[in-house]
Amino acid sequence: MLKRYLLAPGPTPVPSEVLLAMATPVIHHRSPDFLPVLDSAKKGLQWLYQTKKDVLILCSTGTGGMVGAVNNFFNHGDKVLVINGGKFGERWTKICQSYGLKVEEIIVEWGYAVRPEMVEEKLKKDQGIKGVFVQASETSTGVYHDINALASIVKRYEDTLFIVDAISALVAHDLRTDEWGIDIMVGGSQKGVMLPPGLAFVSVSEKAWEKAETSKLPKFYFNFKKERENLAKNQTNFTSPVTLIIGLNESLKMLQAEGLENVYKRHEMLAHATRMAVQALGLELYSKESPSNALTAIMAPPGIDGQAVYKNLREKYGITAAGGQDRARGKIFRIAHLGYVDRFDIITAIAGIEMVLKGMGYPVKLGTGVAIAEELLMD
Amino acid sequence: MLKRYLLAPGPTPVPSEVLLAMATPVIHHRSPDFLPVLDSAKKGLQWLYQTKKDVLILCSTGTGGMVGAVNNFFNHGDKVLVINGGKFGERWTKICQSYGLKVEEIIVEWGYAVRPEMVEEKLKKDQGIKGVFVQASETSTGVYHDINALASIVKRYEDTLFIVDAISALVAHDLRTDEWGIDIMVGGSQKGVMLPPGLAFVSVSEKAWEKAETSKLPKFYFNFKKERENLAKNQTNFTSPVTLIIGLNESLKMLQAEGLENVYKRHEMLAHATRMAVQALGLELYSKESPSNALTAIMAPPGIDGQAVYKNLREKYGITAAGGQDRARGKIFRIAHLGYVDRFDIITAIAGIEMVLKGMGYPVKLGTGVAIAEELLMD
Repeated sequence: MLKRYLLAPGPTPVPSEVLLAMATPVIHHRSPDFLPVLDSAKKGLQWLYQTKKDVLILCSTGTGGMVGAVNNFFNHGDKVLVINGGKFGERWTKICQSYGLKVEEIIVEWGYAVRPEMVEEKLKKDQGIKGVFVQASETSTGVYHDINALASIVKRYEDTLFIVDAISALVAHDLRTDEWGIDIMVGGSQKGVMLPPGLAFVSVSEKAWEKAETSKLPKFYFNFKKERENLAKNQTNFTSPVTLIIGLNESLKMLQAEGLENVYKRHEMLAHATRMAVQALGLELYSKESPSNALTAIMAPPGIDGQAVYKNLREKYGITAAGGQDRARGKIFRIAHLGYVDRFDIITAIAGIEMVLKGMGYPVKLGTGVAIAEELLMD
Repeated sequence: MLKRYLLAPGPTPVPSEVLLAMATPVIHHRSPDFLPVLDSAKKGLQWLYQTKKDVLILCSTGTGGMVGAVNNFFNHGDKVLVINGGKFGERWTKICQSYGLKVEEIIVEWGYAVRPEMVEEKLKKDQGIKGVFVQASETSTGVYHDINALASIVKRYEDTLFIVDAISALVAHDLRTDEWGIDIMVGGSQKGVMLPPGLAFVSVSEKAWEKAETSKLPKFYFNFKKERENLAKNQTNFTSPVTLIIGLNESLKMLQAEGLENVYKRHEMLAHATRMAVQALGLELYSKESPSNALTAIMAPPGIDGQAVYKNLREKYGITAAGGQDRARGKIFRIAHLGYVDRFDIITAIAGIEMVLKGMGYPVKLGTGVAIAEELLMD
């Protein structure tokens, strides 16, 4: 028996309570049985997003929400600015280009966070920029971009929307949609909200809804105006993924019982303990600054292949973490602390890393990192 | 206690075996744990679709598969022919138009099937038609269009693709993808395959893959070439809806144990019994010809509101059927016999209809329809 531990940055573990709620008999999405279910999910998402506006619920992966954030608010030829500091930054660029937008990029070295003043400069120089796209937590590098600072810059430009991919940051970071002025924020089910993959969430500001009026890009499946009309009636535009929405309510209930502030504190504490523990083993963080609370990206020690660390964790110890993507492949491995995780998931991860690295010939005094984690995670 | 019976044309009931399989711990979609899961689902769908080609698996409702059938194979300005005989025929038109295609329609009166020779005529007259779109089972009217006859016409036109929305027909009707020459066929999870909503399936012929080479419509989320490349490695392009795909394997196992021929026979038998039973009550079918084996659309008797029949079934008896859509609203109600249904689901439906209609003042001798159903459903 090799017991499995899922510590990847999505999908993340789903609590049994949620899995079993999803195993109740299927109900019809246009029946009165479903209306209170969606109503409750809608209110729960407003709470989680810290917004008074509706948060749309889409039947797709998080990427579908990102596509909708483009095809509902822009037009062919629009100039937009993408903050590209990793694989998911690149994704914004590719999506925008696939719809014929003209993309300017601020290229951020992998492992670093964007300097907000660079965005300010670009916007000042070129008033024609219709949107600024960024990741809150860039999953490929484990870096958190300063969403509050960026929002406060972009919101001064009347004709520019601020669009945040918060797919891996939601739940792990305090993201204040209304207070900070985030125009569009995308989330996904298989991350902090502790659900299987299959749902995307998108908040939309009044400023963004106004821009939507003039957008002419094709938008049959990801049609946000239709989704908003339906959501007002506690419906979705097409067949609702009823099972996942039932699960969403269960997850939100668990998060609400914990309280938003405690949820953020837990993620911060687990992230901090992970970072301190791996550094105590002599390892270096891949994120040179502003590390994300959703996951920790760790440099493989010299002479050791990051992919091999990740594979050994899985094959020898049953721990599914993540390797590196694209240019970081082989150089790093990544441990998530996102969603349904607590202290002993971190202890497990650190112990696993110690055992794997020692097995690969890296000089580790077993228990060193674990001791640090224990100390930081004591009540 | 009002026990619930789901007899709507989607979502349909999901067997407990499938629900519980979906409640097992989430696995990672890029891990070796998942590869055999997707491999098995892939093979099962080939069996169900009667095709040697890959059947793509998308994370979306069935409508997402329909959108992909348009944006992957056509170009702005392409002329296409839509067979529009109901609400889902209209949907083909709307999707095509949203991508700038020029749509010609063959309007079929609701409740009737298309005459294949009308399609032949159109194609002869205008060799510029790039695609013919149709529903196998038009869910709004309960009519089955003759896919075999239509395919045999369209396949003689080298430059024309034949695209079938089989979302509600799949499993209920024998649809021979390769033998008949269906170029693109779309299915959805929450119908015959006995799953919750959240997956679309799409088969693609070699002829269609060739057309895909020249299609320039935006296709970031529904990018079939990328999905094909990923499927070859037992992956999907974005995060796989792992839970639903685990459920899909369980469902396909149940269907395979029954055998494809028996699955079709069961649906035919249940549909036939339903039609005979309601006619024995003096009710008329809404489908004047070629009734679908997925669902039966029934005219409300004169003076009785079809929506009220559907609501009484649900509120008084716990049976979720369906009302009429758009122009059929108030005139009809619909009973599905699709997926996880057997004899006593039909008996339940007919008994419910008898009790509701009698309660509404329609002259019914209770048990009349049930007796017919029993007779037709005896072993």
